[in-house]
Amino acid sequence: MTRITYVLEESAIEVIPREIRDDKMIRQFCLKRGKHPEEVLLDQSYHHKAILKLANNEMRGRPDIIHFCLLEATSTPLYFKGQLDVYAHTLDDKIIKVEKNVRLPRVYERFVGLMEKLYVEKIISYKEKRLLTLSKGSFEDLLNKIRPSTVIGLSSIGKESSNEKVAKYALRFENPVFIVGGFAKGHFGADKRKLMDTLFSISRYSLNAHIVTARILYETEKIVLA
Amino acid sequence: MTRITYVLEESAIEVIPREIRDDKMIRQFCLKRGKHPEEVLLDQSYHHKAILKLANNEMRGRPDIIHFCLLEATSTPLYFKGQLDVYAHTLDDKIIKVEKNVRLPRVYERFVGLMEKLYVEKIISYKEKRLLTLSKGSFEDLLNKIRPSTVIGLSSIGKESSNEKVAKYALRFENPVFIVGGFAKGHFGADKRKLMDTLFSISRYSLNAHIVTARILYETEKIVLA
Repeated sequence: MTRITYVLEESAIEVIPREIRDDKMIRQFCLKRGKHPEEVLLDQSYHHKAILKLANNEMRGRPDIIHFCLLEATSTPLYFKGQLDVYAHTLDDKIIKVEKNVRLPRVYERFVGLMEKLYVEKIISYKEKRLLTLSKGSFEDLLNKIRPSTVIGLSSIGKESSNEKVAKYALRFENPVFIVGGFAKGHFGADKRKLMDTLFSISRYSLNAHIVTARILYETEKIVLA
Repeated sequence: MTRITYVLEESAIEVIPREIRDDKMIRQFCLKRGKHPEEVLLDQSYHHKAILKLANNEMRGRPDIIHFCLLEATSTPLYFKGQLDVYAHTLDDKIIKVEKNVRLPRVYERFVGLMEKLYVEKIISYKEKRLLTLSKGSFEDLLNKIRPSTVIGLSSIGKESSNEKVAKYALRFENPVFIVGGFAKGHFGADKRKLMDTLFSISRYSLNAHIVTARILYETEKIVLA
C-alpha cells in the first residue's frame, strides 16, 4: 500500500533558548506562566524584542506555523484513512512525530500548552495510546527512519510545476515524502536541499506553508483515495 | 471579470450573550480581561460550562473556526489577485466583511482581540484603509448585497460531487458565491438552504470547514488563474 509521508522541515518551534533566558521580558513572561524558560515555547507574538537578539531570528519563534500545518495535514481524509504519516523536524534538530488518529487542539493556546508538555515529557499519550513523540535527530536521521522511496521538497526556488503534476510524480514511488518549509521567511538550508531528490515550486505565488500543505496533500489524496 | 464570493455561513462567533452574562465564571473571565461581557467573544475553550446553558449550544462559541477559514481564504492567490470577496455571516445575523488585501492575525489571541474590537467599533481601519466591517443583516440581506449569479452551498447532505466539478459548474456563472458552514456540528438551517440554488457534497468524508474552504477555493483558483 502506498504510504505518504509529510514532513514540516525547519519548523520554527523551540523552547526559550539559553542566550535569552536572562532577558527581563522573558523572565517576566515565564514567571507569569509559572514555568521555567526551558518549558516555554519561544513565540514571536510575545517575545519579539528578545528574539531580535538571536542569530537567524527571522526563522525562529513561530509555533503558529507548525500548528496550522499539522492541523491541515491531520484534517485530511488521507490521514483519517491511515495513509499519511506526519512529522515536523525543527530548526534545532528535534523530530516531532504525530501518530495515527490524533486530534490536535484547534485553539492555539492549547496547542502551545501541549507542545510545552511534549518538550518536557517527550511522549504524550492518552489512555495508553501514544499521540505525539519528541526525539533528537537531524533531518538526515529522520529520513533514515522514514526510508522513503523519494524525497520531494516544495519551495518557491524549485523547478516550476503544479500540485497535480507533483502529486502524480510522487505516486510513481511507493513511499514518497513531501518536505514543506515550516518557517516564515527564507528557503531550506543547502544542507537540507542536498538530501532532497527533487525540489518543485507549485505556484507562481509565494504561499504560506499551510496552503502548500493543504494543496499538495489534497492532490495526492485525490489520486490515492480515488 | 469573474468575481468569486466566499461566505462562511452561520459562523459560531458572537459576544457573550445576555442569558449568561451573570454566570460566575463568565464574570470572572471578563474581569480578568478588563472588559465588559458585551465586548468579549463567547468561546467554547474558556466558557464551556456556561455555554451548555444556551439554546443550540453545540453550534456556538467557536471563533477558532472563523479564524481558520478566513485565514484559509485570505491566504490564496485568488484573494491576493483581488478576485475573491470574503464574508462571514454569523448565527446571530451579523455580517463581517473582509476587505481586499487584508492580512489577518495568525495567532488566535490576536484574532480574538481584533474581532472584539470589531464588535465594539464596527469598522477596523489601518492608515485610512478599511480592513473589516461588521453590520447587522440576515443571510438574505447579505445575498441581496452580493447579488450573486448563483448560490452554491457546500454540505455533506448535498448532492454528491467533487471540488473540481463544483468549481467548473460555479464558473459557468459570472458571480458565483460559495457558502461554507462555519459551525462545528450540524447542517445549514432550512431557512438558509432555501436561499441556495444548489447544495453539493464535495467529499465522502465529513470535513472541517477550513478544509472545505481550502479545497473549493483552490479548485476555483486553478481555473480562474490558469
